[in-house]
Amino acid sequence: MKRTEAFLLDLDGTLYRGTEVIPDAPDFLRWLIETDRKYLFVTNNSSRRPEQVAEHLRRFGIPAEAEHVLTPSMVAAQYIKEQGAGNRVYVIGEEGLRSALIEAGCEITDEQPDYVVQGIDRQFTYEKLMTASLRIQSGAIYLATNVDKALPTEKGLMPGAGSLLAAVATASGCQPIVMGKPEARMIDHALEMLGVPKERAIVVGDNLETDILAGVNAGVRTALVLSGFSKRDHVAETDGKPTIIVDSLSDLIRLVE
Amino acid sequence: MKRTEAFLLDLDGTLYRGTEVIPDAPDFLRWLIETDRKYLFVTNNSSRRPEQVAEHLRRFGIPAEAEHVLTPSMVAAQYIKEQGAGNRVYVIGEEGLRSALIEAGCEITDEQPDYVVQGIDRQFTYEKLMTASLRIQSGAIYLATNVDKALPTEKGLMPGAGSLLAAVATASGCQPIVMGKPEARMIDHALEMLGVPKERAIVVGDNLETDILAGVNAGVRTALVLSGFSKRDHVAETDGKPTIIVDSLSDLIRLVE
Repeated sequence: MKRTEAFLLDLDGTLYRGTEVIPDAPDFLRWLIETDRKYLFVTNNSSRRPEQVAEHLRRFGIPAEAEHVLTPSMVAAQYIKEQGAGNRVYVIGEEGLRSALIEAGCEITDEQPDYVVQGIDRQFTYEKLMTASLRIQSGAIYLATNVDKALPTEKGLMPGAGSLLAAVATASGCQPIVMGKPEARMIDHALEMLGVPKERAIVVGDNLETDILAGVNAGVRTALVLSGFSKRDHVAETDGKPTIIVDSLSDLIRLVE
Repeated sequence: MKRTEAFLLDLDGTLYRGTEVIPDAPDFLRWLIETDRKYLFVTNNSSRRPEQVAEHLRRFGIPAEAEHVLTPSMVAAQYIKEQGAGNRVYVIGEEGLRSALIEAGCEITDEQPDYVVQGIDRQFTYEKLMTASLRIQSGAIYLATNVDKALPTEKGLMPGAGSLLAAVATASGCQPIVMGKPEARMIDHALEMLGVPKERAIVVGDNLETDILAGVNAGVRTALVLSGFSKRDHVAETDGKPTIIVDSLSDLIRLVE
């Protein structure tokens, strides 16, 4: 595995777990930097701006800069820019999504949008659901940042973007185009940012259904780290099989060195 | 069809359409009264109290009293009473649902509920979604009044209880026990209220997927009225086939007399 030049890293469950850092994550990042590897933090969290994601990682002692962060909000903004089919966007989402769209030149509006873009929104209301549904019925293209159903927290599983997606899709009768993992789109986008061919990259994550499946969908090698959501015996039941399975990031270093 | 003694009547699409009465609906009701038939207005709308439903019908010139109304909120309240598994209920819903539960002796609470009961709620928020999901994860039984995905209005299709259901079910990983049409439960409840055996009843409605399927599920004859949602050529594609298809309620009178 000498040729592994670029690492696409998941965050929660891979580098930290809730409010606790995973012990070898800071050293893993230092190893990436010292050996001149390329890397991106590839998160399905649409709520934070890249700088906020980097700041969050630094608080765990993990070296991180905004330029190393890829969020599904950024992928959505880029998608709209590339399509050239209008820049009027109705948003169900938080700061990370709004700012990514505004930075890409989108106009946030609830009147005659070209797109409805939906992520996690802890200020979600019936009114927003209704507006999204009516605009999609009128022809706006429906994009969703990610399909994660629920987010593990200390209090239990909190509703994720995928729960709001279920409401919007049911009300409008329309399934969204999805930006985040497990879509190949996000991995393709990351490789383009890094300028690395897919043969020389690896997706590293703890979740078979998002991280690993995204790598499989994009034709990129994958490493399942058993520090988070998915366990070794889940592998048999899943569509996306990881290229390698490791107990820890330290084990991953030994395998790729 | 002389033996048709009881009529279980749908409302929207059958007796009125949005803000307009269906022309022969008032006469149909007068015929039911004059020929001493039993009848119930069996609606999937959980938001109104029976008296409000009756008042709404009277505004269309349709004779109606609260005692002739059956809502899925009433079915939910009765269900909880009969189960005897606690009376603490967390509610996502409007006045019709809350008042039905309170009248049945339920205590509305967001702490340690025995049930989460969800209907249409135009004050729905992420906070309510989160509370419902957490309480269901803690063991509360999840009941939904109805699965209607969207409600036709002059402005377009508004999100229905089924859209909120999709969010709660996705977030909690739990499917609800459903009270309203197309569940047999609601028809069984109606027949019990009227004291009529199923052989002598007929379900009348405009929607194959709710009204007619409910009748089929309950083993009761059904009449599809082509005044609303479902068209004649939809019948071939559906699971629940109506016993008879009529263009209007006047035609139905001619067939059952």
